[in-house]
Amino acid sequence: MPIRILITGGTFDKQYDEIHARLVFRESHVGEMLRLGRCHAEVHLRTIMMIDSLDMTDADREAVVQNCRQCDETKILITHGTDTMVETARALAGAGGVEGKTVVLTGAMIPYAFGSSDGMFNLGSALSFVQVLPPGVYVAMNGRCFAWNDVRKNRQTGVFEAVSE
Amino acid sequence: MPIRILITGGTFDKQYDEIHARLVFRESHVGEMLRLGRCHAEVHLRTIMMIDSLDMTDADREAVVQNCRQCDETKILITHGTDTMVETARALAGAGGVEGKTVVLTGAMIPYAFGSSDGMFNLGSALSFVQVLPPGVYVAMNGRCFAWNDVRKNRQTGVFEAVSE
Amino acid sequence: MPIRILITGGTFDKQYDEIHARLVFRESHVGEMLRLGRCHAEVHLRTIMMIDSLDMTDADREAVVQNCRQCDETKILITHGTDTMVETARALAGAGGVEGKTVVLTGAMIPYAFGSSDGMFNLGSALSFVQVLPPGVYVAMNGRCFAWNDVRKNRQTGVFEAVSE
Amino acid sequence: MPIRILITGGTFDKQYDEIHARLVFRESHVGEMLRLGRCHAEVHLRTIMMIDSLDMTDADREAVVQNCRQCDETKILITHGTDTMVETARALAGAGGVEGKTVVLTGAMIPYAFGSSDGMFNLGSALSFVQVLPPGVYVAMNGRCFAWNDVRKNRQTGVFEAVSE
Repeated sequence: MPIRILITGGTFDKQYDEIHARLVFRESHVGEMLRLGRCHAEVHLRTIMMIDSLDMTDADREAVVQNCRQCDETKILITHGTDTMVETARALAGAGGVEGKTVVLTGAMIPYAFGSSDGMFNLGSALSFVQVLPPGVYVAMNGRCFAWNDVRKNRQTGVFEAVSE
Repeated sequence: MPIRILITGGTFDKQYDEIHARLVFRESHVGEMLRLGRCHAEVHLRTIMMIDSLDMTDADREAVVQNCRQCDETKILITHGTDTMVETARALAGAGGVEGKTVVLTGAMIPYAFGSSDGMFNLGSALSFVQVLPPGVYVAMNGRCFAWNDVRKNRQTGVFEAVSE
Repeated sequence: MPIRILITGGTFDKQYDEIHARLVFRESHVGEMLRLGRCHAEVHLRTIMMIDSLDMTDADREAVVQNCRQCDETKILITHGTDTMVETARALAGAGGVEGKTVVLTGAMIPYAFGSSDGMFNLGSALSFVQVLPPGVYVAMNGRCFAWNDVRKNRQTGVFEAVSE
Repeated sequence: MPIRILITGGTFDKQYDEIHARLVFRESHVGEMLRLGRCHAEVHLRTIMMIDSLDMTDADREAVVQNCRQCDETKILITHGTDTMVETARALAGAGGVEGKTVVLTGAMIPYAFGSSDGMFNLGSALSFVQVLPPGVYVAMNGRCFAWNDVRKNRQTGVFEAVSE
């Protein structure tokens, strides 16, 4: 059962521009991460955008929804910035045409390119949750999986938690 | 729902002894890996042994079974060398007293201490599968999850595959 | 013959603030880098400031000069941001009281904390040049050593080159 | 002034064979290390052999001497296993035809491929010492440089020290 991976950027894919000494987006690292993870699940990658999720507009979010709606796969993993991940999850849950699919959003607090990353861990986690969870929209962060309507990012700690906890 | 993590060693935990220029086991890296992965799932770690799985005896394997049988948790993740992981999975499936529990074995091809590891990816993967799969014994490797009686390690490629494929 | 290491910050010591998703300075990594490099040269570390060299004021630069003037050691290594390293070298060369000492400035294009760094290489290089070069002020970058008055940073490539080349 | 780099293997270049779970030699990492170090010194690389220095025979050692004797460059850096580095230095010092050249041997305690390596530090160090030291045979390890006839490896600590200390 193939898995569609939709890439939107986020901390996951930030890297360091050594000439200008700042953080930038270039190519996605997700393909390389799957290779290093020795992933042999069947995945189809598509990069939709490569942005900080704080810069994600309604039109961008609609593009994510459209991609989920139109793809053939019923298992979808989305890499996403953590700041507005929950907002995109809500947009997906409210959109028509995604009901029968399992959609899992994940991200990272540390860019993969900066070494001691949580990205590899989260990617392995999200890819596993998406294979076994029933249809619905979920956020997979910190080794846990949350329903789209019971999750928030704690801005002080950077940790995702259930609203109901 | 707390998860029991049983550590047995394996490539996961191998490190380099710079004085004697050889691979050795010392302390487990699993706790540090969970910290770097920003894991906030509730886990209870126990190191049972710290060995290469090629050196695992019947008595060692029985110790693994005993730990699964006696622990309070019904979700169990075992870090294990890849060479005899399937054999230990079989021992667990055949043992009495583990039936109601979800047991997931995982490992790595590259030691965590050597950098570009598949260990972080596999740990995130196994920790996620164990949370959602029904009772049974599984092997989680290469981004996939296999039933204990439908998996083998391909010795040429180092990749786990379904026997039925 | 002990070596004084004066730390001023620069890319060398930048790290990633995962809560605010930006580059920051905290503690210096130079001590840890020397430990990982298995350095057994006798060194005395002092952190003077922890800033981006673009933010270095005349007063900051004077503080660097004062530290070089007053320390007992005649071998001095300065870690420094690359953007104004040459300017600080010039200030040192023009200041009274540093004439009898060998001063080597070095830096990095990639923060040590981001992995595939040039910092370890440059630190090993600068620490070696400072031990054997005669009194004077030098810039050690890119595996080369330049006199303070024959060096510039190429802004397009990020590489240091001799003005006379 | 170009620098000849002669590669003989050693811990520097060991890597992990994930299929057979053992340490092996394949291609040298020295070129990649120079690239990551942003080295712009002019260097000419030649791989003579790719072995553990404990396995180095008299014929191997003679091949190293021959390469030093015959190359055009007067600045020579040799990457070498640490266990018999001092022995090769002695062979070089005793050989005719190398007198007018500066030869620096260096190595590593941790393979470059295993991450937190001393290799980058030592490579930067040796490359710098070789540029400024007068003709002679030296060992550059641990941020220090030793004359060939006043150095030994401490087997307990793995640290190089002067015999005269």
